[in-house]
Amino acid sequence: MPNVFGKLFTISTWGESHGGGVGVVIDGCPPNLPLSEADIQPELDRRRPGQSEITTPRKEADQVQILSGVYEGKTTGTPISMLVFNKDARPGAYSEMKEKFRPSHADYTYQTKYGHRNPEGGGRSSARETIGRVAAGAVAKKILKLTSEIETLAYVTRIHDISMPADAEISESAIEANIVRCPHEGTAEAMIERIKEARSKGDSVGGVVECRIRNLPVGLGEPVFDRFEADLGKAMLSLPATKGFEVGSGFEGTLLKGSEHNDLFENRDGRVRTKTNLSGGVQGGITNGEDVVFRVAFKPTATILQEQATVDLSGEETTLMGRGRHDPCVVPRAIPIVEAMANMVVLDHLMRQHAQNSLFTFEA
Amino acid sequence: MPNVFGKLFTISTWGESHGGGVGVVIDGCPPNLPLSEADIQPELDRRRPGQSEITTPRKEADQVQILSGVYEGKTTGTPISMLVFNKDARPGAYSEMKEKFRPSHADYTYQTKYGHRNPEGGGRSSARETIGRVAAGAVAKKILKLTSEIETLAYVTRIHDISMPADAEISESAIEANIVRCPHEGTAEAMIERIKEARSKGDSVGGVVECRIRNLPVGLGEPVFDRFEADLGKAMLSLPATKGFEVGSGFEGTLLKGSEHNDLFENRDGRVRTKTNLSGGVQGGITNGEDVVFRVAFKPTATILQEQATVDLSGEETTLMGRGRHDPCVVPRAIPIVEAMANMVVLDHLMRQHAQNSLFTFEA
Amino acid sequence: MPNVFGKLFTISTWGESHGGGVGVVIDGCPPNLPLSEADIQPELDRRRPGQSEITTPRKEADQVQILSGVYEGKTTGTPISMLVFNKDARPGAYSEMKEKFRPSHADYTYQTKYGHRNPEGGGRSSARETIGRVAAGAVAKKILKLTSEIETLAYVTRIHDISMPADAEISESAIEANIVRCPHEGTAEAMIERIKEARSKGDSVGGVVECRIRNLPVGLGEPVFDRFEADLGKAMLSLPATKGFEVGSGFEGTLLKGSEHNDLFENRDGRVRTKTNLSGGVQGGITNGEDVVFRVAFKPTATILQEQATVDLSGEETTLMGRGRHDPCVVPRAIPIVEAMANMVVLDHLMRQHAQNSLFTFEA
Amino acid sequence: MPNVFGKLFTISTWGESHGGGVGVVIDGCPPNLPLSEADIQPELDRRRPGQSEITTPRKEADQVQILSGVYEGKTTGTPISMLVFNKDARPGAYSEMKEKFRPSHADYTYQTKYGHRNPEGGGRSSARETIGRVAAGAVAKKILKLTSEIETLAYVTRIHDISMPADAEISESAIEANIVRCPHEGTAEAMIERIKEARSKGDSVGGVVECRIRNLPVGLGEPVFDRFEADLGKAMLSLPATKGFEVGSGFEGTLLKGSEHNDLFENRDGRVRTKTNLSGGVQGGITNGEDVVFRVAFKPTATILQEQATVDLSGEETTLMGRGRHDPCVVPRAIPIVEAMANMVVLDHLMRQHAQNSLFTFEA
Repeated sequence: MPNVFGKLFTISTWGESHGGGVGVVIDGCPPNLPLSEADIQPELDRRRPGQSEITTPRKEADQVQILSGVYEGKTTGTPISMLVFNKDARPGAYSEMKEKFRPSHADYTYQTKYGHRNPEGGGRSSARETIGRVAAGAVAKKILKLTSEIETLAYVTRIHDISMPADAEISESAIEANIVRCPHEGTAEAMIERIKEARSKGDSVGGVVECRIRNLPVGLGEPVFDRFEADLGKAMLSLPATKGFEVGSGFEGTLLKGSEHNDLFENRDGRVRTKTNLSGGVQGGITNGEDVVFRVAFKPTATILQEQATVDLSGEETTLMGRGRHDPCVVPRAIPIVEAMANMVVLDHLMRQHAQNSLFTFEA
Repeated sequence: MPNVFGKLFTISTWGESHGGGVGVVIDGCPPNLPLSEADIQPELDRRRPGQSEITTPRKEADQVQILSGVYEGKTTGTPISMLVFNKDARPGAYSEMKEKFRPSHADYTYQTKYGHRNPEGGGRSSARETIGRVAAGAVAKKILKLTSEIETLAYVTRIHDISMPADAEISESAIEANIVRCPHEGTAEAMIERIKEARSKGDSVGGVVECRIRNLPVGLGEPVFDRFEADLGKAMLSLPATKGFEVGSGFEGTLLKGSEHNDLFENRDGRVRTKTNLSGGVQGGITNGEDVVFRVAFKPTATILQEQATVDLSGEETTLMGRGRHDPCVVPRAIPIVEAMANMVVLDHLMRQHAQNSLFTFEA
Repeated sequence: MPNVFGKLFTISTWGESHGGGVGVVIDGCPPNLPLSEADIQPELDRRRPGQSEITTPRKEADQVQILSGVYEGKTTGTPISMLVFNKDARPGAYSEMKEKFRPSHADYTYQTKYGHRNPEGGGRSSARETIGRVAAGAVAKKILKLTSEIETLAYVTRIHDISMPADAEISESAIEANIVRCPHEGTAEAMIERIKEARSKGDSVGGVVECRIRNLPVGLGEPVFDRFEADLGKAMLSLPATKGFEVGSGFEGTLLKGSEHNDLFENRDGRVRTKTNLSGGVQGGITNGEDVVFRVAFKPTATILQEQATVDLSGEETTLMGRGRHDPCVVPRAIPIVEAMANMVVLDHLMRQHAQNSLFTFEA
Repeated sequence: MPNVFGKLFTISTWGESHGGGVGVVIDGCPPNLPLSEADIQPELDRRRPGQSEITTPRKEADQVQILSGVYEGKTTGTPISMLVFNKDARPGAYSEMKEKFRPSHADYTYQTKYGHRNPEGGGRSSARETIGRVAAGAVAKKILKLTSEIETLAYVTRIHDISMPADAEISESAIEANIVRCPHEGTAEAMIERIKEARSKGDSVGGVVECRIRNLPVGLGEPVFDRFEADLGKAMLSLPATKGFEVGSGFEGTLLKGSEHNDLFENRDGRVRTKTNLSGGVQGGITNGEDVVFRVAFKPTATILQEQATVDLSGEETTLMGRGRHDPCVVPRAIPIVEAMANMVVLDHLMRQHAQNSLFTFEA
């Protein structure tokens, strides 16, 4: 079930870049949740192409329709099917891609694995596939918002070699205040310039997204294989263009000694807290009540408007000139996708935690 | 099923550090595989404590027994149950840990999540839990060895801030030539010194493990959620003490431009190959026939022989003096564990790939 | 994942009787299968209402659309999304059902479980939900047809107390020769009369469907929990209105002694065969190469055009007069649904069998 | 994962009749449950061979050991591994069975599917495999007992053609009052005679087990594929020697008209109840608060002490004379096994029901 994600809040996604549409079926959504397209569309709007001058100029409204699972404005506990029809297709634009493999794209691997592929816009390997994830994530986000204080914020901390100061203030408004979604305004401007510069040369850049989940209860995550950070990691590494995931101190933390890295416990305001948070909010695979902080590496966009060496379907060496309307940097549009995946992981683990640990109370 | 891993080659692990024993049940192992304890024990020996002067001095033979699934020396296709009885327990040693939470350990989170825990040796959160993984991984390794050229080699590339040269030769014999399992001899010596130095101060260090899987076929990995690197990432992040995972260019790759990062295709010796391998052997979540290369960050051991601030079961602030026999660095013993997890991911994906893509041939 | 079925050939169904539509997403379909709506529609036509004088007079064309997973007429190995929009809705007709629970329907249990339900046409508990199953089953059927001799035939053996002779000839043409789908013409006529008679009195009848799967290989089914008949049984018992499942000799077989019941082996035409088939084609949960024969009990339709005692949403006793256009007997329309489920179980087990038992060959 | 059962209360069973032992790993057991071997052993004693004059005279103590997941007498929420070592093996007794396939046993299908099998005592296809199920079921039973009024009682209603009166009183003491486990004493005596008579002729008989689950809440079961009766049916059909499953009115119910079959609602003692219970406690796949009543058909034991025609490993026709110590009727010993499976299905669905439907409350 490679296109099914989640154990209790389960999603099945489908669709290709240039097929009939893309969509998702949610299985396991709690009943009685007030829900309409108006809850979903804003998240899709944060993801959609053409939203700013540093994204692809392709225009797609990406209007979502809810086809099932909601009655009189509330969920019924049955599957929620959501659909976005595809528009703005230019099938002619892909004739060359049918024959030649784009470097560092999925063309060659899909072709070899399946023997047949939809080359238009990358088919299933297109980032357009993430529409279903974002739509489902919007449902998870609403559930968390209505029933908890949990808040998930993703933001850009680095574009190419331009990094945000570590002590920048993180807030939803600061993140959405600029088109690159870096909460530090000065850095954001430099990042935008770097992206424009790359595009002007037909090149591309990547970067790092950080995500912070606040107000989590202690206890989410199920050792040993479904540790909270393992499920988060899998969710993030399943996104197109990702090359790495780290939580808390991450790779840098290996440069510290144990005496520097350990998060000492204290009693703060009547609660058990840690003085530092190099653990990133997880210990032994279980949330400890501190912010869960993780980072995801996104590689530079593989599509560049330059001529590159490659091979064709028959294995002959040739060259391919990049064309079309593409993002010179996928990172700003990745923000709502990272949040969607994180919110679904949180919700799924909340349900799992309760099912095993909260339902049955045995007298002492 | 948080203690069940894999879809077609499925393992269920069980056991605590100081309970009756630890073990694993494999479900889905192909029949007719010649198998005995002699295939498993060597991998457990690479993992076991007390194997060298830089590991914990605890002595445990970790002798494995196969209890089912093998008849007359060959697997029958039914579940394989493997068991290692615990020995060398010192229950008295853990009375303080019952009351006080060790910093950056799982004591506090397990206690809060479950309301009851086995504190002896960390219970289920102990790295001793990985014995079941290594035993099952040895079975996967044997299957791969008998039926393919696939080879999985993990090795230490960094301890604290001591890194191996990027161009060092990687081979099984070079890795096993020293006790730190770094294939570059000169670096290995420095690493060993660094570990000894940390131990002498009651401190600990972490590091980075790299793993290289050679001779994989093109086509392993199932988009979108079960991408090959996503499943590898989850497997690695489910290991104790891990804080990060990256594949190919990883986090460093985000410093490159698309024109520098793309792996151009060429025809080499009649096969489609890439000139570089920044992708790390996966494109679009599917192996492309190049080596799969990934890295895992291991934090410094949380147990240090120093006094640390913490809280107790009632939330009162207190201090805890680290005691006992522990690894000053878990990285060398992590090598066989990383390999075991990687081999199981490879085998599982081979089975999945064949099930969907190889069984049914339709005439053109 | 209560709306997800299958392990390797996985379907996710969604939709209510009177919502936007009903549909299914198939995950795991092999690539390169020639596929279009024309492969699906005939099975839906066998299932759709209004097809004959003994079904509900509701008219629904149930036109299927394939939205993804097919490119240039062949599957790509990615998810196949299929959709049927709902039509012919009469929302006004259901105002009474919103307040009163129909006896032996799912109104009360859905209301209590979820706290909110779509009452129109039974919502998710409507048999209309099976459209997605039939559409997905048509894909499985085509795969089996193109790659094997396996043939699945379901047919009506009893309506109310009218039974078909045990030795009637079974063929697709005999089954489809009449509207009740009983392959024995004389019995079929009596069955049709019985259904018409029940309808004329505002009453309903049930019956028994038998299904025969021919030309199966030896070896499908995975002990211990996923025995072939256990998976078939679950599939059938997941259908609306079913009350029982039996394989081979079934409940009647318990009246025999072991010496009468055992299927003795013989060598027939160079193959190991059994002289009798009371086992129904499965031994130890695994197919033995004989026909798999099973039967499913369908209760009389719960909707009858008579006044019945019931309670309302507040628990007050009241009466409800059945109204609307309903099948006086669901059994004839259940035939393509039973076949669809059976074909998916067969395909899933073929994939599972190969994955574990056929991929790896070890030298003696 | 054919040897893994359950979604939230998950068990993995392993072991063969004559291997090292048999066992089970439970994953997902709630923490803080008081648990020791004394909770498990009584259920195993009800299942074990040699318990009465109508079972096999084989003597096996079947002493269970808990190896993990329990600390200081209470579960910790981590996997519970339980083990029964095999004894009383007579390997020599099976040399003929290695060469010849026993009719209506799993020898031929296992041999063909896997190419290699453990023939001693039937290996994995032996009913001895159910020890793991009964041990795990005992844990589920204790949880239900400590946290609810739910009670599961299975009992024999028919042996061969001897049936219990439909109105017999059902109680645990009446069931356990005799060795055949039929709660109607007069019928029990006749049943015991029939079994002895069959054994005296080297023959065997089968029968029907009924199971009644009382005091279930409304709302267990998850449409569409995981209906409560579908999961029960799969659980029962996964047991050795079963040929059928029915719930409520079952196959007989198809002889009624809708007007006779419908369960009318009433308000009884302030609760919504049905006047009759032909539905068997489930409507639309969800429990409705009435007793869940189902029946399972068990075929006559395949092993009979008579000479039977069969074939050997090379396909040559031959004969086989039944030998050894076997149950002339498996039904009495099946009672604790049916209860174990039912209790696990109930517990799993309680956890699932709460996870989706009880955790999140949204304001109106």
